[in-house]
Amino acid sequence: MGSLEKERQTVGWAARDPSGILSPYTYALRDTGPEDVYMKVICCGICHTDVHQVKNDLGMSNYPMVPGHEVVGEVVEVGSGVTKFRAGDVVGAGCIIGCCGKCRPCKSDIEQYCNKKIWSYNDVYTDGKPTQGGFAGAMVVDQKFVVKIPDGMAPEQAAPLLCAGVTVYSPLNHFGLKQSGLRGGILGLGGVGHMGVKIAKAMGHHVTVISSSDKKRDEALDHLGADDYLVSSDAARMQELADSLDYIIDTVPVFHPLEPYLSLLKVDGKLILMGVINTPLQFITPVVMGGRKSITGSFIGSMKETEEMLEFCKERGLASTIEIVKMDYINTAFERLEKNDVRYRFVVDVAGSKLDQ
Amino acid sequence: MGSLEKERQTVGWAARDPSGILSPYTYALRDTGPEDVYMKVICCGICHTDVHQVKNDLGMSNYPMVPGHEVVGEVVEVGSGVTKFRAGDVVGAGCIIGCCGKCRPCKSDIEQYCNKKIWSYNDVYTDGKPTQGGFAGAMVVDQKFVVKIPDGMAPEQAAPLLCAGVTVYSPLNHFGLKQSGLRGGILGLGGVGHMGVKIAKAMGHHVTVISSSDKKRDEALDHLGADDYLVSSDAARMQELADSLDYIIDTVPVFHPLEPYLSLLKVDGKLILMGVINTPLQFITPVVMGGRKSITGSFIGSMKETEEMLEFCKERGLASTIEIVKMDYINTAFERLEKNDVRYRFVVDVAGSKLDQ
Repeated sequence: MGSLEKERQTVGWAARDPSGILSPYTYALRDTGPEDVYMKVICCGICHTDVHQVKNDLGMSNYPMVPGHEVVGEVVEVGSGVTKFRAGDVVGAGCIIGCCGKCRPCKSDIEQYCNKKIWSYNDVYTDGKPTQGGFAGAMVVDQKFVVKIPDGMAPEQAAPLLCAGVTVYSPLNHFGLKQSGLRGGILGLGGVGHMGVKIAKAMGHHVTVISSSDKKRDEALDHLGADDYLVSSDAARMQELADSLDYIIDTVPVFHPLEPYLSLLKVDGKLILMGVINTPLQFITPVVMGGRKSITGSFIGSMKETEEMLEFCKERGLASTIEIVKMDYINTAFERLEKNDVRYRFVVDVAGSKLDQ
Repeated sequence: MGSLEKERQTVGWAARDPSGILSPYTYALRDTGPEDVYMKVICCGICHTDVHQVKNDLGMSNYPMVPGHEVVGEVVEVGSGVTKFRAGDVVGAGCIIGCCGKCRPCKSDIEQYCNKKIWSYNDVYTDGKPTQGGFAGAMVVDQKFVVKIPDGMAPEQAAPLLCAGVTVYSPLNHFGLKQSGLRGGILGLGGVGHMGVKIAKAMGHHVTVISSSDKKRDEALDHLGADDYLVSSDAARMQELADSLDYIIDTVPVFHPLEPYLSLLKVDGKLILMGVINTPLQFITPVVMGGRKSITGSFIGSMKETEEMLEFCKERGLASTIEIVKMDYINTAFERLEKNDVRYRFVVDVAGSKLDQ
């Protein structure tokens, strides 16, 4: 057993049980190994998954759990094998901080699909110790899972890109939907949906926000810059827009019928599911076959795509719409997020919350 | 009204009502227009859709109806604008004999997805008259929807390729699944499934036939040349083959769960639906998202793909497994097809049945 005096410690905010209430928690960080980047956390975005995890909604939570996987930090120290980063660099870490390196997805640079991937928190690292996330003073992360934040991009702007941003960028990139002039739909306007509108607009797409009500019309059109707004219960407009979209990014996290949205797609159109829904979704085959449409989905993005996406967002001057809070507001922020009471992403100012002092 | 004496006539076998029983029926064929090919039918395959159509299973049947959309014939006469074909050529016609020519699918050479496509039977042609299919002495077809049967390919071999063949060739072609070395699954071993095995093998794929029972094992492995046979209720083998297939061609025409088959797919694998099923199919999103898998489907193939596929089959010496019958056997053949009592496709020897004499 190592002596605690010799171990490097940090303070994070951890959930202790399925109540999901976070409070300060002191724990050890491993020494900086040859491949490791030791970073002081600057800020960290709050993702809806964090809420599910701290409350054990997926039935797989271990406590104490420090959530947070949209992490931006400043490099303090790097291992001997690290050449890409050096002390002072502003860097990011996302959902995944380890993978096997040997399987087909790993060898194809889509390590997010590795069956042995290691999550940035609520998982066990290769040293047998629990992983802990970004709502903490510091993290130690293998360099493979660290990205450089482009010069000139504000840390709090970068944070939501590391999960929500790459989650929408990756399928558009992978499925050949990056070229300008396409017509896209964004179904649902939460953290991922708002990023979907911004990224699709930055790609030069005509973007229709699709929603179950009229409530977010002004927000979508005026604030986020969407081109059109479609209420799914408006049968006349749904008919008018039939066969008109190249893709729909479907961020709805609960059961919903798919036919109305499949009908909006052109021949070869793609319905890209982003919501983890354990209630079965349904469709009838003629709607798919009759237009060679695809129902698909993807899961965050690779480190390679994360780098590309950050550059893309910097070049296009894309800005997330965020609300910055301090760490002692995090429980309130989680509560508000559960009620979708945020425009559109909370980012915790970790450095300004002085956890490690 | 034109005088019947002046009109060209032919004899087909038509259903008169939803009993679906076919009997001889004499009707007029239009004069050979500038773009038309007038062909004497040599033979015509029986597709499961024919059974549904004559029995009004889709609720859209008009009578009298001469079915048949896997038609091979000999050109008798061509219109003044036809240069690709001449009298004596052996040619084929499939499911579609008209389209608008102006929409995006038409302009992209995927006219099978044109919303104004005209079916080879049970539809209305541009002249306002009913279309009638290939179980008849002759047909007149717009040259755009006629393909040359490659020299050396037997007409009865070509017939099933015009629907079943291109139906499996088209998605493999479109979805980038033609290169050798891929691992494919064929779910269901009927007319389309058997062609799936043959075409996938001809592409150099490792082919696993997936079935609900062990009944067709010898048939699949010994007769059709599949590489593996998987019974879907065999949990141990289903687990063993998880994440192993690049695609599955799913020919099951009734409700079935999708998760077991989605689980067999690798990352980026495609489940390609071929069965028109109006009972909703179901899946949970994590199974799709977690491996960026696609649920898709397609509908026959384009004329361009039909030509390519015929050449491909000729080059590879691919042979359909067929049972040749005369026209007066057609009602029995339809009955047997409904019970899947055929290995694997009936082809009616129309010329040998001397309908027009």
